[in-house]
Amino acid sequence: EVLLTSERYRVERLPFSRVTHSDVAFFERLMPGRVITDPEELKPFNVDWLKSVRGSSKLVLKPQTTAEVSQVLRYCYERNLAVNPQGGNTGLVGGSVPVFDEIILSTVLMNQIISFDKVSGILVCQAGCVLEKLNDYLEEQHFIMPLDLGAKGSCHIGGNVATNAGGLRLLRYGSLRGTVLGLEVVLADGSTLDCLTSLRKDNTGYDLKQLFIGSEGTLGVITAVSILCPQKPKAVNLAFLGCQSFAKVLETFTTCRAMLGEILSAYEFMDEKCMELVERHLKLSSPVAGSPFYILIETSGSSVIHDEEKLTNFLERAMTSGLVTDGTVATDDKKIKASTWFILISLICQMLWSLRERITEALTHDGYVYKYDISLPVEKLYDLVTDTRAQLGQRAKNVVGYGHLGDGNLHLNITTEAYSHSLLDTIEPFVYEWTARYNGSISAEHGLGFKKKQFIHYSKPSKAVSIMQCFKATLDPKGILNPYKMLPSS
Amino acid sequence: EVLLTSERYRVERLPFSRVTHSDVAFFERLMPGRVITDPEELKPFNVDWLKSVRGSSKLVLKPQTTAEVSQVLRYCYERNLAVNPQGGNTGLVGGSVPVFDEIILSTVLMNQIISFDKVSGILVCQAGCVLEKLNDYLEEQHFIMPLDLGAKGSCHIGGNVATNAGGLRLLRYGSLRGTVLGLEVVLADGSTLDCLTSLRKDNTGYDLKQLFIGSEGTLGVITAVSILCPQKPKAVNLAFLGCQSFAKVLETFTTCRAMLGEILSAYEFMDEKCMELVERHLKLSSPVAGSPFYILIETSGSSVIHDEEKLTNFLERAMTSGLVTDGTVATDDKKIKASTWFILISLICQMLWSLRERITEALTHDGYVYKYDISLPVEKLYDLVTDTRAQLGQRAKNVVGYGHLGDGNLHLNITTEAYSHSLLDTIEPFVYEWTARYNGSISAEHGLGFKKKQFIHYSKPSKAVSIMQCFKATLDPKGILNPYKMLPSS
Repeated sequence: EVLLTSERYRVERLPFSRVTHSDVAFFERLMPGRVITDPEELKPFNVDWLKSVRGSSKLVLKPQTTAEVSQVLRYCYERNLAVNPQGGNTGLVGGSVPVFDEIILSTVLMNQIISFDKVSGILVCQAGCVLEKLNDYLEEQHFIMPLDLGAKGSCHIGGNVATNAGGLRLLRYGSLRGTVLGLEVVLADGSTLDCLTSLRKDNTGYDLKQLFIGSEGTLGVITAVSILCPQKPKAVNLAFLGCQSFAKVLETFTTCRAMLGEILSAYEFMDEKCMELVERHLKLSSPVAGSPFYILIETSGSSVIHDEEKLTNFLERAMTSGLVTDGTVATDDKKIKASTWFILISLICQMLWSLRERITEALTHDGYVYKYDISLPVEKLYDLVTDTRAQLGQRAKNVVGYGHLGDGNLHLNITTEAYSHSLLDTIEPFVYEWTARYNGSISAEHGLGFKKKQFIHYSKPSKAVSIMQCFKATLDPKGILNPYKMLPSS
Repeated sequence: EVLLTSERYRVERLPFSRVTHSDVAFFERLMPGRVITDPEELKPFNVDWLKSVRGSSKLVLKPQTTAEVSQVLRYCYERNLAVNPQGGNTGLVGGSVPVFDEIILSTVLMNQIISFDKVSGILVCQAGCVLEKLNDYLEEQHFIMPLDLGAKGSCHIGGNVATNAGGLRLLRYGSLRGTVLGLEVVLADGSTLDCLTSLRKDNTGYDLKQLFIGSEGTLGVITAVSILCPQKPKAVNLAFLGCQSFAKVLETFTTCRAMLGEILSAYEFMDEKCMELVERHLKLSSPVAGSPFYILIETSGSSVIHDEEKLTNFLERAMTSGLVTDGTVATDDKKIKASTWFILISLICQMLWSLRERITEALTHDGYVYKYDISLPVEKLYDLVTDTRAQLGQRAKNVVGYGHLGDGNLHLNITTEAYSHSLLDTIEPFVYEWTARYNGSISAEHGLGFKKKQFIHYSKPSKAVSIMQCFKATLDPKGILNPYKMLPSS
């Protein structure tokens, strides 16, 4: 059993009210059959996906409509009951589960698509829609979601927006700050802020929705999202390559960006330790082996012939100049056909992506995982892994690095047999100080949640933190929304 | 002489202090030689580019550093002196000039490039850099700015960010909300908020910079900008086409987006009235004539051959299916070469862009201009022009429509011999009510400034407006920054 967060981290419960029988009765009347109080049923809602933090909520609510969310929050606000908004519960920083007995407000039943316009590509849907299901729905209409991530099968779009999720397509389609066009949000006091527009451009006043994007449920509960979706590319190609050094990974990136230009849609990297873990724990096998670094390059474009030509030219250059030493190419074309090196089909595309996407899963099989999600200037990216390895020596089981190189985003992960507080003290603030030294961010895309909130000062000046606290106090004066998260206690 | 704004619009001065001799003496000591009090020199700072509004400021300050901006604001905050931040003064809604005697804080001398990283494409510069100069600087290093607009020769990047400028490249590179990575801002009380990071991803707390993007100088003075710049495309092609109806303009857009995909970088349209005015007032001539609508399509890509092939295929389809009836193609390749229809060189590219970019200028030669910048679902876009023409009949000299069709953004402009208050009453709120009926935005990219602030309710619910007013009061409790602008007086 996972240790209670409050015990492991020694935090104190704030003086919120405790849920009473009459509170439960109120919610039962409001949403009959969608109120969970059974201890067994509550368990998965209280523990995060990593099994690293555990709360002790005694109540889960499953609203279906914005009106219900509004009624719930109005009630909680008046009663001074703390609330933990929860989407797919796939967060990695302890932001999605309660710390104490906060009421869990789950968006799991808010899963309706409201509209999709094929001319503009604008999708409007409820916050609880699962990312992968949205993508499947769009693909039938020759569009795709502008974001993709490993947790796509479980994560909710509302949670993606609340955490400003990055993921695998950011390099090509940009961040949610550009693609999210509108939001509907219920505020702490139950009032609804309707900014659910479907316009690409709107300069009428401050862009309030931006404050909720990445606010991790601390400012309001996102109930619906309007998002601009790109057309489904006609041609997708993958290359999985081996590199002899990180310097060559970087040089390959520069070359690739220049030669592939607008069709480059992903440039991911992983080190050999990652490959080892994926092979050992998930029994996946790689067609490319024996290199200290691996790169996954994806192109997405509108012409099969043009894109293959560009990719082939790039690969020839990369091979002849010794940037990459081994590689495999796959295309999503349904018919089998000869390519430069191998003959591969669509399944192989999925398999190649799995090698990269399932690293997180493989790591959880390796023991307790200390996860760091760092933004750095690309030249510095891998030095942090090397330095952390040296810092920890034999005390760590594995220290691995992978991530979205094209975005300057490193996932540094350290595994041990079991959680150790003294090892944590050796890692933190070492990793954060290192990151701050090179003006990096201590959270590129995962957010701060519960586990990283006290380190915000490594990436933000105190003036910024105090303005954030001001905004929090303005929008949620009683602090009932996702307490103990994101902002340091003042 | 332009009528004083305060007289034309009958607004009342708020009880700010008035500038005294000792204030001027203080500023003279702070920035000797960079304080303007001469009435003749003050004139251009007091009147907007459209010559539609005029303030009566008696003092212009030209700081060179963030520290100076900070000292100025600290002083003004203590003295309760109102301040009007001003960039290139190219705004179209009266946001960039004072309404009364606000001190003008000009960024004209804050024009230094701080750094440019060729690997990441990240530019960091002071707020007063002129957009076109930044673009010229980047082009030498094979990059470009992610935005482009008609006023590029004068507008400052700080002003672009403060107004969330859209422009001609938004279709391809997205909005400033995605490309601006960091900002340095001086707040009303003179304190500096340093969020000038150069990271593509950073999820540590609320993204405060977003609040300043598009805040029109009401929340703080932007002093420096960090922005992600795309690589300069190797191949740029233009097509200038004639269409027989707006329905065909739309169908051509759908076809073009499907066939050109990722290389499509602009899809602009203008009606025949625009063409008439550009030809009459600026003596430009168009190679394509006799159509009720014109389209300008730009492609930007990494392969000259591939892009020309895509464009040629698209144009053949568009011609044979009768979507377009006439057209011209140009490429920026320096050598003259045969294309499908015409042989044209780089100068012709500029000339074609001029037809579209200089419409605003042509309109100012036609008389007094009532300007509207509307977001609408594309299908509805031109109906507003037709309905406005019918509404105004003979009372308008010209009613024209043009804009960024790919972004759903219409520029509706009405000209008359001279300003008429009764005509304004016929246009407003007619245009705003029409826009609200189709869930459009009454300001797609120009902002609200002084002229449109009282109409914010047509595009934003009152809950949103009251939150905005809250944030304004939090960050600028005395309301000294760009008063009378953007938010309706409460």
